[in-house]
Amino acid sequence: MKPKKMLMIVCDGLSDRPVKQFDMKTPLQAARKPAMDALARHGISGSMDVIAPGIIPGSDTAHLALFGYDPYKVYTGRGPIEAAGAGIDVKKGDVAFRCNFATVDASLRVIDRRAGRIKSGTDRLAKAVSGMRIEDVTVVFKEGSEHRGALVFKGPGLDFRVSDADPHAEGRVLESKPLAPEAEKTARVLNEFVRRSYDLLKDDEVNRERMRGGQSPANILLPRGAGSIRELDPLSKRYGITCAGVAGVTLVKGICRLVGMDVPDVPGTTGGLDTDYKAKADAALSLVGSHDFVFVNVKAGDVAGHDGDFRTKVQVVENIDMMLGLILKDLHEDVVTVLTADHSTPVNVRDHSADPVPVTVSGGGSRVDGVKEFDEVSTATGALGRIRGTELMPILLGMADRAPKYGA
Amino acid sequence: MKPKKMLMIVCDGLSDRPVKQFDMKTPLQAARKPAMDALARHGISGSMDVIAPGIIPGSDTAHLALFGYDPYKVYTGRGPIEAAGAGIDVKKGDVAFRCNFATVDASLRVIDRRAGRIKSGTDRLAKAVSGMRIEDVTVVFKEGSEHRGALVFKGPGLDFRVSDADPHAEGRVLESKPLAPEAEKTARVLNEFVRRSYDLLKDDEVNRERMRGGQSPANILLPRGAGSIRELDPLSKRYGITCAGVAGVTLVKGICRLVGMDVPDVPGTTGGLDTDYKAKADAALSLVGSHDFVFVNVKAGDVAGHDGDFRTKVQVVENIDMMLGLILKDLHEDVVTVLTADHSTPVNVRDHSADPVPVTVSGGGSRVDGVKEFDEVSTATGALGRIRGTELMPILLGMADRAPKYGA
Repeated sequence: MKPKKMLMIVCDGLSDRPVKQFDMKTPLQAARKPAMDALARHGISGSMDVIAPGIIPGSDTAHLALFGYDPYKVYTGRGPIEAAGAGIDVKKGDVAFRCNFATVDASLRVIDRRAGRIKSGTDRLAKAVSGMRIEDVTVVFKEGSEHRGALVFKGPGLDFRVSDADPHAEGRVLESKPLAPEAEKTARVLNEFVRRSYDLLKDDEVNRERMRGGQSPANILLPRGAGSIRELDPLSKRYGITCAGVAGVTLVKGICRLVGMDVPDVPGTTGGLDTDYKAKADAALSLVGSHDFVFVNVKAGDVAGHDGDFRTKVQVVENIDMMLGLILKDLHEDVVTVLTADHSTPVNVRDHSADPVPVTVSGGGSRVDGVKEFDEVSTATGALGRIRGTELMPILLGMADRAPKYGA
Repeated sequence: MKPKKMLMIVCDGLSDRPVKQFDMKTPLQAARKPAMDALARHGISGSMDVIAPGIIPGSDTAHLALFGYDPYKVYTGRGPIEAAGAGIDVKKGDVAFRCNFATVDASLRVIDRRAGRIKSGTDRLAKAVSGMRIEDVTVVFKEGSEHRGALVFKGPGLDFRVSDADPHAEGRVLESKPLAPEAEKTARVLNEFVRRSYDLLKDDEVNRERMRGGQSPANILLPRGAGSIRELDPLSKRYGITCAGVAGVTLVKGICRLVGMDVPDVPGTTGGLDTDYKAKADAALSLVGSHDFVFVNVKAGDVAGHDGDFRTKVQVVENIDMMLGLILKDLHEDVVTVLTADHSTPVNVRDHSADPVPVTVSGGGSRVDGVKEFDEVSTATGALGRIRGTELMPILLGMADRAPKYGA
């Protein structure tokens, strides 16, 4: 049998709980969503603990699980994911950090952890610090949005188990401490990096200009969230498939890159409520032509959940449904398609929750159960049962006739 | 989001199999139980393997699992649980045993393993043996109901891996043997304890009196079921919650104490068919006011199951339903409530069985599925799916907004 193509659509945080003021419905239950319901009607559905029952997934650990990786084995911290998202090539052995551009006084006391939420000039400041050598370590730094950036150390004998230099509040910049004997060198290099960042940035033209205008200078970098990549074999090597991901958010892009996906820039995909759904649909259809496995993340539902905004979340469902409709209209029936969420972000919680998420798999000759609607409760009674996040990718590969055989 | 309170009601052994003479119904299906059914209608339901598929749970291992502990990691034997239930403070490093008062002849042959089911005087006999020192070990002994008692050794270098002194039949008292080299001292102390118990008890006034009345003297103690407490972090430490348990049976009380629950004495709760259901309901409601997590065990269903008495079991269901109705009438809707059983005790088996048990979680903004009745088969089609006993507590904590987050 010819192996089939696979498409995974992850609606970030879309899953919810029933809300009393809205007739005890969840946003998914309250929305008009003919495409999602059609997918459920033509496939098999279930309920998924993305990490495990009673564990609230972060978007990072959740996506690792959805791609088939056990986050308890491969996840060490947010650093490498943000760095990969920023476009830095993170390799095994590297140690990566998230960073803030911040404002300190001459005694290295933090005055503003976000350097007045600096909007421009960080590209020039980034160039000033990136590429430096500390001992035998090469420093790679890349700016992100506003005051954010990503830092990667490349060199021998590094270990991610170091404490943050970022004090996470106003006060003195912290001396990073090794949290394991093997991490002594990394802490030493990190502290030297922070000192040098101040020396290199404090008199830069960008900061002189800011000070002239009465703005806080971005005169130091405060690293946090150290992490390394552990045994993260790319999907191509694990499953022998070519992969591509469409995402607006840096974090999700980073995970896609770490697992070896092509991550094309899709103009108009913002990771916000204003993302261009049609552009995502077009990109997904085009990538299904060129790749074995295509992943699409839509962030907007999570944003509405964090905002506690039921009506907007209903609108997001209907927008995603429109996008899904565009995809399904032109998608070959042999493509195994999964629709799910990475976690719940109930509007009454305004944060991620441990509630399981709905999941439907359809297309490619999938079995068909009696589930007629795509929502948290309807799918939970389907033929897929209650599964774990790390089981989804193997199930998908199985339905696409790409599973390994065990025994004879 | 403010964390919610949690209430877990465990109907001991209530789960069953269909019985031909009763129209192929289980006792749960045959009973009138409006409160249970209302709970199912307003929540999500499932089917639960309390230990694992095809493993018959004991009440001890089952309750450990329901409280979120992996019994394969924390359970070593019944001894510590009975001892805690009897009110002895059992600590890590102690070795605990269940004991029978028995009757032996002068050559230490067991004549009656239950000393004529002695009804009174064991408190006095217990005082005669408790507190003795053997080598550097302190002996704590406490009488239980009838011929039963609990024994705890406290001292350095003890190990629970010793064989029973109780021959479990008439015949010679057994010499306890170490089952691991580290347990040599414990076996030696245990054998010395058994010998001394005979010396101390044989001429006690209680036994002289019994012999004068033609009754078997309780002239020796026969320990069995050695166990230790392993890494049993209390629930308060594991989850940061205050806990209370209501139970009539010593065994269940013991588990509640071992996991760090407050276990108030509730007059009228007997652990038998005659337990005071209204007293239990009142206690549960009052404890929900003062604690984060409240547990209620009702033993009567298990008793009817062991008796093979279908009609009595139906009556037990209806009594528990009355108790649940009293609770739900006054319970705040924000309390996440779970109704389940610790194992099945089918009337046709007259013992525990491996059949999964029904489970419903409701309240606190829970999702709502289509399940309308609380019984073994109806709940199994619900949105909770098929879960394991150790997953229940994490699920409950998740719904109560008390779950940990993993990742960012």
